[in-house]
Amino acid sequence: MNTTVSMIQAPAEGTATNYNHIQRVVAVMSGKGGVGKSFVTGLLATALSQAGYRVGILDADITGPSIPMLFGLKGPVEPGEVGIQPLQSKIGINVMSMNFLLASEDQPVIWRGPLIGRAITQLWGDVMWGDLDYLLVDLPPGTSDASLTTMQSLPVNGIVMVTTPQGLASMVVRKAVHMAQSVGVPIIGVVENMAYFVCPDTSKRHFIFGPSHVEEVTMTADAPLLAQLPIDPTVAALCDAGDIEKVELAEIPGLLDAFARAVPIRATKEI
Amino acid sequence: MNTTVSMIQAPAEGTATNYNHIQRVVAVMSGKGGVGKSFVTGLLATALSQAGYRVGILDADITGPSIPMLFGLKGPVEPGEVGIQPLQSKIGINVMSMNFLLASEDQPVIWRGPLIGRAITQLWGDVMWGDLDYLLVDLPPGTSDASLTTMQSLPVNGIVMVTTPQGLASMVVRKAVHMAQSVGVPIIGVVENMAYFVCPDTSKRHFIFGPSHVEEVTMTADAPLLAQLPIDPTVAALCDAGDIEKVELAEIPGLLDAFARAVPIRATKEI
Repeated sequence: MNTTVSMIQAPAEGTATNYNHIQRVVAVMSGKGGVGKSFVTGLLATALSQAGYRVGILDADITGPSIPMLFGLKGPVEPGEVGIQPLQSKIGINVMSMNFLLASEDQPVIWRGPLIGRAITQLWGDVMWGDLDYLLVDLPPGTSDASLTTMQSLPVNGIVMVTTPQGLASMVVRKAVHMAQSVGVPIIGVVENMAYFVCPDTSKRHFIFGPSHVEEVTMTADAPLLAQLPIDPTVAALCDAGDIEKVELAEIPGLLDAFARAVPIRATKEI
Repeated sequence: MNTTVSMIQAPAEGTATNYNHIQRVVAVMSGKGGVGKSFVTGLLATALSQAGYRVGILDADITGPSIPMLFGLKGPVEPGEVGIQPLQSKIGINVMSMNFLLASEDQPVIWRGPLIGRAITQLWGDVMWGDLDYLLVDLPPGTSDASLTTMQSLPVNGIVMVTTPQGLASMVVRKAVHMAQSVGVPIIGVVENMAYFVCPDTSKRHFIFGPSHVEEVTMTADAPLLAQLPIDPTVAALCDAGDIEKVELAEIPGLLDAFARAVPIRATKEI
């Protein structure tokens, strides 16, 4: 198995940037792993796209990308003359992920930090994103290279912070909040994922990860709670099947409204 | 807020190594975040300690450490002349984490990869681990600096791979499996966490993250399934309260047996 993935064979760095017009760049972050950053990114992108916005997703999780599977997208993509053409999701979201550049989806990317950072700037500057209202950047866990490079090298307008009910997650997410604050990128809101599970037999809500600690996060972040999302086995099944765009949750319209209000764009949509 | 954490102020690198006698080093890995690496590390360490083994935990998750909260341990620790004394858990497990070197637990460590790697070698070489049967290394998500440094610079005897039922997790975990194989560190077994939730009202098992994909992982890893652990709100509550050592699960004895058989030590325990 070839585990030494070569860097993207694209033209001189950033050549696509001149052709891209992106109104708003929003990073989806957590610090903690496995809280559903990619899920929230996918839900938001879908809701924005369905509302008429032009949306892209930059998957900045180089070593553990989830976005391709959520949307059922596979590479490889081939670099063109000016830059790499992102893949299109079923409803027309522009998606680019490191996984699209690998020979197989379970090939590891065994890179140290500097290469991770460089890959992210290439996914930004060497990709033909085109005209977008929103580009969502799905960050990996941690407060190291990927987060640093994204916040320092990309024009990030704001951050959506994702957490889960556990106190454990809350503590690590607060580290990410403090990082964003120290780098000076505003946190536009907090999403609590896996908040509860509704038993299909009794319709009772089970708080299976314990009572919520989201208030600790919203207070530290000085940002509003955008949504509390449940655990739903039918949602998990759609995600595993690459059909996140078919997910329906009662909380999505509220999430969309709160997001679009927090990060308004200049009117471009015709509805 | 001081976000530029200084490196550990310890004596010349690795001075404690001469005083440490560690029989087996086992890394707990996943590639994917939030699957319960730290939880499995804590459960295993507790079970081994209760069985009479001398156990340590090296928390290699520098930017998102969970081990301190699971055991209810807080720093700061002060470096001594020869090295840093780890903290002792309630039942006597030696624990060392980057969080013990921070002014507050929610302070972020905003370091690029090379510093992350160096911190891990310091947590190995500058800590007075003493005489241990097992040192468990809790790895962060990803296949970048922390995993690379641990596998290349520490004498790791084997890896426990942790996954959850989702196909999404399985794909990313298989990346970690391929990384371990390419670096030549044996995978001793796989633990599936969050396998199901038992409704307290109906006692029915709900596979809330969908059907298991663990077989894809065990086959790729060519390693046995060590345990399938349920989601249990009482367990989550104990973990948030720092009482992971009080967690009781029917699956733990089987996990302990399988682990001790896979990574035997020379007899040192007197029971």
